[in-house]
Amino acid sequence: MAYVQGMASLFGPDDFLARLHRVRHAALEAGVDGVLVTPGADLRYLTGYDAKALERLTCLVIPTHGDAAIVVPNLEVLAALASPIADLDLPVIGCGEGDDAYARVADLLPKAAVIAVDDHMWASKVLRLKAAMPSVEQLLAGPFIEPIRMRKDAREIAALRSAGAAIDRVHAQVPGLLRAGRTEREIGRDIAELIISEGHVTVDFVIVASGPNGASPHHDLSDRVLQQGDAVVVDIGGTMPDGYCSDCTRMYALGSPGEEYLEKFDILYDAQRQARELARPGVAAGAIDAAAREHLDAHGLGEQFIHRTGHGIGMQTHEEPYIFQGSAFVLEPGMAFSIEPGFYDEGRFGARIEDIVVCTADGIESMNLQPHELVVVE
Amino acid sequence: MAYVQGMASLFGPDDFLARLHRVRHAALEAGVDGVLVTPGADLRYLTGYDAKALERLTCLVIPTHGDAAIVVPNLEVLAALASPIADLDLPVIGCGEGDDAYARVADLLPKAAVIAVDDHMWASKVLRLKAAMPSVEQLLAGPFIEPIRMRKDAREIAALRSAGAAIDRVHAQVPGLLRAGRTEREIGRDIAELIISEGHVTVDFVIVASGPNGASPHHDLSDRVLQQGDAVVVDIGGTMPDGYCSDCTRMYALGSPGEEYLEKFDILYDAQRQARELARPGVAAGAIDAAAREHLDAHGLGEQFIHRTGHGIGMQTHEEPYIFQGSAFVLEPGMAFSIEPGFYDEGRFGARIEDIVVCTADGIESMNLQPHELVVVE
Repeated sequence: MAYVQGMASLFGPDDFLARLHRVRHAALEAGVDGVLVTPGADLRYLTGYDAKALERLTCLVIPTHGDAAIVVPNLEVLAALASPIADLDLPVIGCGEGDDAYARVADLLPKAAVIAVDDHMWASKVLRLKAAMPSVEQLLAGPFIEPIRMRKDAREIAALRSAGAAIDRVHAQVPGLLRAGRTEREIGRDIAELIISEGHVTVDFVIVASGPNGASPHHDLSDRVLQQGDAVVVDIGGTMPDGYCSDCTRMYALGSPGEEYLEKFDILYDAQRQARELARPGVAAGAIDAAAREHLDAHGLGEQFIHRTGHGIGMQTHEEPYIFQGSAFVLEPGMAFSIEPGFYDEGRFGARIEDIVVCTADGIESMNLQPHELVVVE
Repeated sequence: MAYVQGMASLFGPDDFLARLHRVRHAALEAGVDGVLVTPGADLRYLTGYDAKALERLTCLVIPTHGDAAIVVPNLEVLAALASPIADLDLPVIGCGEGDDAYARVADLLPKAAVIAVDDHMWASKVLRLKAAMPSVEQLLAGPFIEPIRMRKDAREIAALRSAGAAIDRVHAQVPGLLRAGRTEREIGRDIAELIISEGHVTVDFVIVASGPNGASPHHDLSDRVLQQGDAVVVDIGGTMPDGYCSDCTRMYALGSPGEEYLEKFDILYDAQRQARELARPGVAAGAIDAAAREHLDAHGLGEQFIHRTGHGIGMQTHEEPYIFQGSAFVLEPGMAFSIEPGFYDEGRFGARIEDIVVCTADGIESMNLQPHELVVVE
């Protein structure tokens, strides 16, 4: 989670009020009487308040008929009022250490029959809210909040562009960190420092998967020592001060990884490029997945591509829209997502190439501008 | 969340099997038929697997009568098998992108009437599990997992000691970062880099609360420019590669913050010291809170101490035991928690002093060894 208060300058009260209005409208259409949002990306998106996710309850209450309010622990009242929430004309209701914050939330929704909770709300909150409102049905808010969040405006896209530039600057320095004899963990630590020094406020993930470890898509870091001839998957990302995330994968090699690897890398390179060339508004997510998958399939690598082609990104690294096989979901301008096919040959090696792209009016803009070629470190 | 795989060397298969056994036993006593644990501190504590918390379901299933298993997305199978889980003789059940992972979990608990879910499980998982097992009652696992996790062994205490030493090294460098004319955010960024470079893998929080911002206990960072005479609360923490957390608050001032402030700081200094002197096994948590609170009360600062005295710490920054007013909970050897009284004078200034301490056989050991005095930067 981000530790820096949202930069209030990026969005103003009118933006947050418009987002709250859209959520209320969508909730009404979904047959929901109130939406409950605890700390996380949804709360920050809707109010600008980058609240800490802690055991005490902080909960934005959005009745579909009535005014929103936020219940916060007393010791967070000033932090909430230092956030953009102060300008939203939204009551901030403090709860003391002995108060029943769940009962306060229930009081704000006296007639609710159906409520929606944010998708990332902790079970400890979900079940205590259920206990405080036992006859109220609980649904997920994601199905109607995510469609709002995935349609990014120009300022959000600018934020993703800055995040992409920051992680590109880290990738530009990776060749200097890679050499035979260093461990993945040592290299990962250096990359983590660069992720912060290049402008992120949190390190969200650092994958340095060398040699056979490259065959595990979500390998993190190990004590494996890099060897001459290794191919190395470097998949890294962080969160910027404004809450927007970066995520980019590039491939490196210590000297030559061998003819077979180079041939397969070229197939992957073309698969990723073909998916990018197809991506634009009006195209189904499943067609983008198919563009990459069919090229890998046609060259014998289809069975080694064991995940979907991409995920949406914004104030979470993974959000809607997901780019997966068979998805009929049609892309629109302002949608941001990864294009990241790969191949994984267990026990031998793997590869992945990943860009974050955003749909423009008639094409895509890539947030990541580092070359896609295998970077051979001699 | 930590991005570095758990250091398998800290604990071995026997440790994890013993922990799983304790949880199964406690679940049985709680009348629960199965425990479901998604990525987070509970999963890492029980299995050593530091899994990514993502939208795809990863879920450890612990039937109270039967063998445990873990359901993971196919692309995480190798990562799971690279973790200590590989040595636990615990089936790793991979699910493809199109499989119903929730149905797989339900299949593993065919006769369950009551299940417990980990306290931090996302609502999206809680409600989908409910849909997959509609007649099964859901409870929280925290009430029986936390009592196990809060009793730390010598290796866990050593891990907390290392975390404390790492954050102490950051505090030792804070005076060099503080000067009039810099903003809290600039200083916070420097501290974030130090948190990583001194050995943490994630920056969990950075509070730099200068002048009147010190009156907000959970103030983060703002663009306020530090001024001569400011008192500055610096409350910082991160997670180490082994998953254990640091958390320490020290007070700084740019030149003299004034006589009144210095007098009140001395009262707080004594309050925090008295709480530390009382803390030991056999003492109630509420008595430790009272030691600090009564001293502040007696000197007119009681109303400005608006939060509890402390929280437990381990693989989460906040966990059991909580040190709050009236708590009859009796401390035992191996319990780790913060002692962090403060005072908060809205619009003027604030202060807090915080150590992490661990109960030894007959007293406490402090994980933080930086002096408690106000550090005046000239």
